[in-house]
Amino acid sequence: MDRRSFNRRMLLGGAAAATTLSLTPEAVGTGRRARTAPGGGKVKHIKLYAEHLGHGQMGYGFKKGGATIPGPLIEINEGDTLHIEFENTMDVAASLHVHGLDYEITSDGTRGSGSDVKPGGRRTYIWRTHTPGRRKDGSWREGSAGYWHYHDHVVGTEHGTGGIRKGLYGPVIVRRKGDILPDKTHTIVFNNMTINNYKGHNAPDFWAMVGERVEFVMITHGDHFHTFHMHGHRWAENRTGLLAGPDDPSRIIDNKVVGPGDAFGFQVIAGEEVGAGAWMYHCHVQKHADRGMAGLFLVKKPDGTVPHHNAHAHSRNYQSDGSDESHSHGHHSHGHHSHRHHSHRHHSHGHDEYGEFDGVYDLDD
Amino acid sequence: MDRRSFNRRMLLGGAAAATTLSLTPEAVGTGRRARTAPGGGKVKHIKLYAEHLGHGQMGYGFKKGGATIPGPLIEINEGDTLHIEFENTMDVAASLHVHGLDYEITSDGTRGSGSDVKPGGRRTYIWRTHTPGRRKDGSWREGSAGYWHYHDHVVGTEHGTGGIRKGLYGPVIVRRKGDILPDKTHTIVFNNMTINNYKGHNAPDFWAMVGERVEFVMITHGDHFHTFHMHGHRWAENRTGLLAGPDDPSRIIDNKVVGPGDAFGFQVIAGEEVGAGAWMYHCHVQKHADRGMAGLFLVKKPDGTVPHHNAHAHSRNYQSDGSDESHSHGHHSHGHHSHRHHSHRHHSHGHDEYGEFDGVYDLDD
Amino acid sequence: MDRRSFNRRMLLGGAAAATTLSLTPEAVGTGRRARTAPGGGKVKHIKLYAEHLGHGQMGYGFKKGGATIPGPLIEINEGDTLHIEFENTMDVAASLHVHGLDYEITSDGTRGSGSDVKPGGRRTYIWRTHTPGRRKDGSWREGSAGYWHYHDHVVGTEHGTGGIRKGLYGPVIVRRKGDILPDKTHTIVFNNMTINNYKGHNAPDFWAMVGERVEFVMITHGDHFHTFHMHGHRWAENRTGLLAGPDDPSRIIDNKVVGPGDAFGFQVIAGEEVGAGAWMYHCHVQKHADRGMAGLFLVKKPDGTVPHHNAHAHSRNYQSDGSDESHSHGHHSHGHHSHRHHSHRHHSHGHDEYGEFDGVYDLDD
Repeated sequence: MDRRSFNRRMLLGGAAAATTLSLTPEAVGTGRRARTAPGGGKVKHIKLYAEHLGHGQMGYGFKKGGATIPGPLIEINEGDTLHIEFENTMDVAASLHVHGLDYEITSDGTRGSGSDVKPGGRRTYIWRTHTPGRRKDGSWREGSAGYWHYHDHVVGTEHGTGGIRKGLYGPVIVRRKGDILPDKTHTIVFNNMTINNYKGHNAPDFWAMVGERVEFVMITHGDHFHTFHMHGHRWAENRTGLLAGPDDPSRIIDNKVVGPGDAFGFQVIAGEEVGAGAWMYHCHVQKHADRGMAGLFLVKKPDGTVPHHNAHAHSRNYQSDGSDESHSHGHHSHGHHSHRHHSHRHHSHGHDEYGEFDGVYDLDD
Repeated sequence: MDRRSFNRRMLLGGAAAATTLSLTPEAVGTGRRARTAPGGGKVKHIKLYAEHLGHGQMGYGFKKGGATIPGPLIEINEGDTLHIEFENTMDVAASLHVHGLDYEITSDGTRGSGSDVKPGGRRTYIWRTHTPGRRKDGSWREGSAGYWHYHDHVVGTEHGTGGIRKGLYGPVIVRRKGDILPDKTHTIVFNNMTINNYKGHNAPDFWAMVGERVEFVMITHGDHFHTFHMHGHRWAENRTGLLAGPDDPSRIIDNKVVGPGDAFGFQVIAGEEVGAGAWMYHCHVQKHADRGMAGLFLVKKPDGTVPHHNAHAHSRNYQSDGSDESHSHGHHSHGHHSHRHHSHRHHSHGHDEYGEFDGVYDLDD
Repeated sequence: MDRRSFNRRMLLGGAAAATTLSLTPEAVGTGRRARTAPGGGKVKHIKLYAEHLGHGQMGYGFKKGGATIPGPLIEINEGDTLHIEFENTMDVAASLHVHGLDYEITSDGTRGSGSDVKPGGRRTYIWRTHTPGRRKDGSWREGSAGYWHYHDHVVGTEHGTGGIRKGLYGPVIVRRKGDILPDKTHTIVFNNMTINNYKGHNAPDFWAMVGERVEFVMITHGDHFHTFHMHGHRWAENRTGLLAGPDDPSRIIDNKVVGPGDAFGFQVIAGEEVGAGAWMYHCHVQKHADRGMAGLFLVKKPDGTVPHHNAHAHSRNYQSDGSDESHSHGHHSHGHHSHRHHSHRHHSHGHDEYGEFDGVYDLDD
């Protein structure tokens, strides 16, 4: 398996489970009540490492030597507090900056606040979250729930331009008590002209069984604007990506303008109303799509096949012999995509696996 | 009348009426209850042709020889199923891909799914829609209602970049039972640096009588991002563009960031609170507006005049002698704009009507 | 004090007070009920001047010789009518165009409608607003409340490209009865690659005391798209930027794609859940941030200090001796930022105060 694309999903179910991987029960689809998030309020501790990945790439990981791009999903519940023991194993200063959560200026991850970490150094970042409620002045205070993200803020420039380009970013989900939980979660990052730092025609594919509740966290980084489009599936333009009920006036969309620093998320029932298939997801900016900012959401029939999809005829190569099995387990599902034997168009055969992995691709016009 | 700008609006009122044009009753404005959409559930059949339009342009049409840019409005109700007998009259492969609706992978319109159509070939695409409701797992399933769009996905590149640039795109509206119906609907497409493939200072104008309920479907295509702005009128940033009621928290806007693949829609009461006038609509990116991405929403007084608007002094020419009459009929109203006798600034006199019509305009900086 | 950055906030509390400055009571934070907006319905009269500011800049002001960039905040309540006696003191034609409000075509501020103003000329623009309510046809009509803005529409080009670039823009807030009022309001305008026409690393800083209710109006102009991000604070993507209550499904964000012609606003409780600190706000497009599209939201502890913030070590210079005092008064607070003694990086020492103020900066790639 591709080390970099193997992103461990950590469901932080409690303080005791903080550094273990969750084994999400496979509550696939029909008949069963959707599982929902519990309330928060726990104090949790995790470790996070910033590492060189070779070929100019950098990543975050929960374990030493286990960094990935995107970094691992951090998933907590409103009310939780997270202590992150961050270790910078690299030879340049790095940091951890998060969007959306509560933290004191000492956990800002910026050089100006003195919360960056020297080469080889450590720092504990503390992230807090809160439930919604009424303030003393009578106004309504929003909660922390949302699809957020973390990234470096110091490598290269004081805005972390170099760190982000090289792969120092990852998703954060804060759930509200009662929020519907997915069967699996995938992260898609449009980082400059790459997807998850894969440039050219090498974007990751994502697998699901018809009926599975699949969650996507979509993050954008770099200098460019994009539109995120998915075939055959759509979502609500609100906090959860799911309509709250019949009175929720939110727009249903399948195409969204996104820009650097953005994050949003949504859940779909794989193949709902449309069936199994190789459903494209891509940037809808024509020039970007044509340059390869496109991948597949491969929705399988119960017998494991994807109709009208011939892996060998397709421009992407993947293991058709069950490689997808690894996707049917919660701890493997995040950010995973199929192994590629060959690279295409802009790549010659024989590249090692890092050859198709490049965060320094620049749009040259 | 300009053949290309004459987009027949087809209100698909029932299976029997599937290929006929509707004659929308002109329920103009005040006093009368707004008309609302009926429930769906019907199976309808239409034909759609992809055609060369000369001068490098391509269009979709309901009848052979009747293709337009944008393609004709397809308007259905939640629960309807639409069988589209598609014929590609051109000498290159083409297809039909739709956003937002339900369709099996065999109706995806992509080459990868084998649902493109060879030169001279035919294919039946089936689009389905569904009403909102509760899933068995207790979660709320959104309905198909929305402002959507269709476009080619194979001409030029596997993302249809060439087909879209040349004009192979059109609007789709799916209405929910009870949705307010407009008196007329216009489609505005920002396609690269053109509006409805008119480049330079030749964007279409749209006409209405004060008090008419006018609907706009706004679609974006190509490589560029824009902001859509309209003077004197505004809309809600939700599913319908209309507030659902006093508790709808949606933002009211008159300027919206749009990018390739986007579609949204809204209704205004022409001249409400502001009166008759030549109200500009334009891209608010200054450079784009200055290059001509601007047109007029011409709102007439009951006597048919537009105050403070001199057609002859204005940089656009149109028939001031009643050409707008054609807009007061439902089947003519969609996408119609005035005939131009002269082109301006970037065009010399004497061009034939296709001379000012160009989808291959590229922003050269 | 920098004349240009001293933007008088005018709370138009009544016809009589129309041209006076409000002295907002400092209802800081905890315990007290939030103040709310009264109903509107008044007719108010103000004067507005368009002026040269030297160094190629232009601004709007309530008093002759008092123009600023951005122009002064105009704040009214739904139902109010505003008569603006506009005087163009400059040697080129100029105008006043507003977003979101009701006005007849004669107050459009466009050349086509004949509502521009010659050098030395005057014109009365009339803006109206309306409350939400039900139309005779049964549909719900939105109200005028919102974060809007005004700008020139004729300097340079027929879209006011030159006027906007030089500084002819400003904020408008229309409040609904019951809307929560802030303690202070700041305006941030991303105008091409500048913030409030300050280019390079000279963006304005904004001050607040922990617990203050601070409102930001964020406007975008020019040719570029940006993402507005603020550290440690967030807002709702709806009309007010504040959740209406527990059932409001709006997304909570801290990063928003913005484009030319956009305006939105929100309120934060300074330092809520995160405490005092030098919180960055910046464009999250990495290249733009690196070029200096970043400033600070300086949230002070009750003792007046900002933890982990050393003014002298920081790349920006400001008066640490109480210059911020001017920010603690409602009539000074709008758009104000600290005086800079030195300019940086792209500027040499010795520039006069206008030297670091430049709206003609163009992104050259």
